[in-house]
Amino acid sequence: MGNQDIKIKKLPIGIFDSGIGGLTVVRAIRKLLPNEDIIYLGDTARVPYGTKSPETVKRFALEDAAFLIRQNIKAIVVACNTVSSWALPDLEREYDVPVMGVIEPGVKTALEKTKTYRIGVIGTNATIRSRTYVTAIKSLRRNTAVFSKPCPLLVPLVEEGWINHPVTHEVLKIYLKPLIKKNIDTLILGCTHYPLLKNQIKKIVGEWITIVDSAEACANYIKKELSAKNILNPVAERQGKLIAYVTDSPDHFTHLADRFLGNPIEMVWKAELK
Amino acid sequence: MGNQDIKIKKLPIGIFDSGIGGLTVVRAIRKLLPNEDIIYLGDTARVPYGTKSPETVKRFALEDAAFLIRQNIKAIVVACNTVSSWALPDLEREYDVPVMGVIEPGVKTALEKTKTYRIGVIGTNATIRSRTYVTAIKSLRRNTAVFSKPCPLLVPLVEEGWINHPVTHEVLKIYLKPLIKKNIDTLILGCTHYPLLKNQIKKIVGEWITIVDSAEACANYIKKELSAKNILNPVAERQGKLIAYVTDSPDHFTHLADRFLGNPIEMVWKAELK
Repeated sequence: MGNQDIKIKKLPIGIFDSGIGGLTVVRAIRKLLPNEDIIYLGDTARVPYGTKSPETVKRFALEDAAFLIRQNIKAIVVACNTVSSWALPDLEREYDVPVMGVIEPGVKTALEKTKTYRIGVIGTNATIRSRTYVTAIKSLRRNTAVFSKPCPLLVPLVEEGWINHPVTHEVLKIYLKPLIKKNIDTLILGCTHYPLLKNQIKKIVGEWITIVDSAEACANYIKKELSAKNILNPVAERQGKLIAYVTDSPDHFTHLADRFLGNPIEMVWKAELK
Repeated sequence: MGNQDIKIKKLPIGIFDSGIGGLTVVRAIRKLLPNEDIIYLGDTARVPYGTKSPETVKRFALEDAAFLIRQNIKAIVVACNTVSSWALPDLEREYDVPVMGVIEPGVKTALEKTKTYRIGVIGTNATIRSRTYVTAIKSLRRNTAVFSKPCPLLVPLVEEGWINHPVTHEVLKIYLKPLIKKNIDTLILGCTHYPLLKNQIKKIVGEWITIVDSAEACANYIKKELSAKNILNPVAERQGKLIAYVTDSPDHFTHLADRFLGNPIEMVWKAELK
């Protein structure tokens, strides 16, 4: 194996999101691949992407990825459902490194878990409107019934910190009831904020509906893909570093980060995208 | 009076906001000054401003105002509490036309209405954190007790269309209860989305608390200021035109606009800020 190959393996994984939610993906990756370095970019100056048009989301995504590429990374992880819905082909066309989103892993996991092939998907307005989950599921198995529900209030509720709050429980009941009525047996959490509501959601949907956490599914997928491409970091006995960049002031991000990451974040810098 | 003066009077008023909420100000202005032309800019590609840092908000505000100035306007109305909190001095320094925000009119109206000088203010996280309302009120009358409460869930609830919804009622009760307990007699709605919730809020705070709608207060203030500067449009018997620009795709904006404006919007164009 050449020096060049070793060098590539030791490069960090680049991850970006419209804001802070992608840290749930970082958390899942660090649990599964603790020795990998990670560079995270949260575009907090322009968050959220979920309410914006495909053209605008594509433009933002290309700018975000260009920033990560300049940091010298071995792969791009798009930890944002909206970008994964609209912009993956553009990113793949533009860059040589592997590009991985959160949709495909969630979809594949859901199709492994479901027995009745009745799958529910929740996400932001943009993710659901894009019909990307429906298209991705049906392209892998045509005879699957997919039921989607946009849940635009869940991100603000999580960011308000109302995780175990009666209002959140009420909102979740309103959003999830139509899906439960459709007799789904699997529910994809199609937004990186939603893993924080997993326990609340479990209480409402009950034991017989399997919840697919797209952050966990994405981490498993990344491990498999990097392994297949033989670019996993070979040095196992080290603790990977996490450096986070944000496009707005780091204060607010740093304050919220531990809720998503599971522990405090140390290095947060301001990024200039252009 | 010279031709030049007449020309200035006939120019449109330029209004900008981070997104769609500023249309409640447009609505109030059109009611009060139906013969004025209005050019509106909603920075829907970067909405919301309320969660972003002062530096980022200032940068965005200068770009928004520059766009309006290029359309040839006689005054700038900042129909956004966050921008009015952080960026008015920067805008006044940069441009020669009158610059009017939403804070001062709301504050002056509240001080006219209050009898006990115990005033409540609700707004986004950024507006409340900026303490601009507190500072503005106390600079006009020092011995005033001001009680503020950030209400970050109200904008998403309005945009979800849950105006007369039990969840919104519950959230409002949680947000307003601490203010009611402080025995306020006047409540400033410090966010352009909140006039849509005025009836719901009235039900909760009761008859003895006066609600100050900052959109209405702002319209009254604009009329007074333009009149004092002698640049009101002198042609009374005409219906003013409204042209709206947005930085993201017009579709979503057009769809939501009539909820804020009270009637459908006709001309919405995509704006390029740079």
